Amino acid sequence: MRAWEKNIRQVTPYVAGEQPKDLNKIKLNTNENPYPPTKNIKDALKHQSEMLRLYPDTEATVLVEELAKFYELDKDQIFVGVGSDDVLAMSFLTFFNSDKPILFPDITYSFYDVWANLYRIPYERPALDENFHIRKEDYYKVNGGIVIANPNAPTSISEDLSVIEDIVANNQDSIVIVDEAYVDFGGQSALPLLKKYDNLVVVQTFSKSRSMAGMRIGFAMANKELITALKNVKESYNSYTMNYPSIVCGAEAVKDKEYFYETLDKIIATRERVKSELIEFGFQMPDSKTNFLFITHEKVAAKDLFDALRKEHIYVRYFNKPRISNYLRVSIGTDEEMNEFLRVVRNIV
Amino acid sequence: MRAWEKNIRQVTPYVAGEQPKDLNKIKLNTNENPYPPTKNIKDALKHQSEMLRLYPDTEATVLVEELAKFYELDKDQIFVGVGSDDVLAMSFLTFFNSDKPILFPDITYSFYDVWANLYRIPYERPALDENFHIRKEDYYKVNGGIVIANPNAPTSISEDLSVIEDIVANNQDSIVIVDEAYVDFGGQSALPLLKKYDNLVVVQTFSKSRSMAGMRIGFAMANKELITALKNVKESYNSYTMNYPSIVCGAEAVKDKEYFYETLDKIIATRERVKSELIEFGFQMPDSKTNFLFITHEKVAAKDLFDALRKEHIYVRYFNKPRISNYLRVSIGTDEEMNEFLRVVRNIV
Repeated sequence: MRAWEKNIRQVTPYVAGEQPKDLNKIKLNTNENPYPPTKNIKDALKHQSEMLRLYPDTEATVLVEELAKFYELDKDQIFVGVGSDDVLAMSFLTFFNSDKPILFPDITYSFYDVWANLYRIPYERPALDENFHIRKEDYYKVNGGIVIANPNAPTSISEDLSVIEDIVANNQDSIVIVDEAYVDFGGQSALPLLKKYDNLVVVQTFSKSRSMAGMRIGFAMANKELITALKNVKESYNSYTMNYPSIVCGAEAVKDKEYFYETLDKIIATRERVKSELIEFGFQMPDSKTNFLFITHEKVAAKDLFDALRKEHIYVRYFNKPRISNYLRVSIGTDEEMNEFLRVVRNIV
Repeated sequence: MRAWEKNIRQVTPYVAGEQPKDLNKIKLNTNENPYPPTKNIKDALKHQSEMLRLYPDTEATVLVEELAKFYELDKDQIFVGVGSDDVLAMSFLTFFNSDKPILFPDITYSFYDVWANLYRIPYERPALDENFHIRKEDYYKVNGGIVIANPNAPTSISEDLSVIEDIVANNQDSIVIVDEAYVDFGGQSALPLLKKYDNLVVVQTFSKSRSMAGMRIGFAMANKELITALKNVKESYNSYTMNYPSIVCGAEAVKDKEYFYETLDKIIATRERVKSELIEFGFQMPDSKTNFLFITHEKVAAKDLFDALRKEHIYVRYFNKPRISNYLRVSIGTDEEMNEFLRVVRNIV
């Protein structure tokens, strides 16, 4: 072993869903949006190549201004980053500097423990109840911070806002991060609570509802003091995280409200239709408020179904983890894609 | 003070050069390239809007492949990030986990101490000699890692490769990072040393020589083991740091070698001409191997010149720091911009 090897940070990286390069596959494994982003970004992209020689606006002003308008907040209540993963990782580094453990559920977004391990943050994982719901009493104990995905992944379940408020209210000595990656598909956002609580950070993303996973845009909303702390850490890491295309195209995406709601409605309608059909085939699943379904079948093992779908070039997500190893997470694609998915599933079960 | 405030990470952020939004100013303060990137990116940008709904390739394969070809390395010897700041910050987090201090010069890129502070890495800053050159003997002491900018900023000085090799060879128990942000403008790259030393990391950027500060692309080159360590930390932070436009346009920029060398030649020619004229006006400066000049004048204080230039809408960089407070860092713009700069300077001195 060479001497420098012992100074290398030991980590267990997150494993993302597969990205098959063959676009003929039906890709329902990473909760992307089946519809392209607003057409308005085409013009924005066309005219920017001359601007690229210059450093981008470190404040991402045009993007932040559009978000502030959309969510009716002040500009200094918004922090943008390279996807919500960048925003969440930076939030962990900024807010979770206590010796006490941070808390998040045993079943949730699998990056939380990865970030905690990366930054050597102690953590505990209270178990969701038998229906995959949060037991809010589990979050009354002493802690160094809390992070809750709502709606949760991969369960698709949205907790009532009263549950979130209860956790925020009972933890005013800690920062509570609510990760709302999927909230636009039917969840209740914690945003209205920002007026009442100064220990709340709400994080959202452009990767799902805004059809821009490839552009990498996420954002946090909180009181000005917390946003300033995030900005200071970001300016201690990389002054220019948001590149020029992400700033200008992100702003265009927020501006086109009509298209945003139109695609949301389509995806929700498809989800409800697919859900009904899957129930007819004998599947069970929680009530989804996301752009995916978390399905299980009494007679067909999830892993077998996963393998059978893969053979038919349909990619869904299987988690080989305690309590959820007999479930599949299936992203909602276009109606055509879901018809093909249903056809293949029907043949299998 | 609210209880959660004590858990917020305390940092002193880096302060970047001003980005005036008024494009009529002459902007010679952040070492951007005065020429736009290759025209080939226009087509790449035009056809990508449909791809943006999907997550980008986490490996940034097409970009990494072009870099591997250009630098005659294996693909797994290259790590890409959101500008060289992202790559360097991640390198600090990955490689500098020792209790011993890391070493870098007293006068150098002002982000190094910011990253060290962010990650609580101890550091020492050996002083450059009176001509702003590295004293290699200063780097023979026990350390937790070394980072050297070569050519250095803001001095513009390039050390001979033998100096760099001496430091790498004398520190085979540590990782040595050579930050070559400006190397394409006339410096000697440490890349040939990669074959001989496994403790070397070479970092470069698209923000200067490749005219793409606005796209945020940087990269590290090293042995496979170090690149794997970097990738693991990146996959523990954000699987998708490089967005789709940066991957495809970055690859186009590397492919267009002819345009790359053409703009380099133009900038170097302009630099040498401006240098001669400034010397005629009574300025002194080190021999620059970068796209900027580090100038001082016996009779005119740097701060006064800075203020006078600003009044004429010409932005250069002034550092109010020990040993360099009578210098200005002036980026090389187009010939027209530099003529205007020289005209104003002549009037002042």
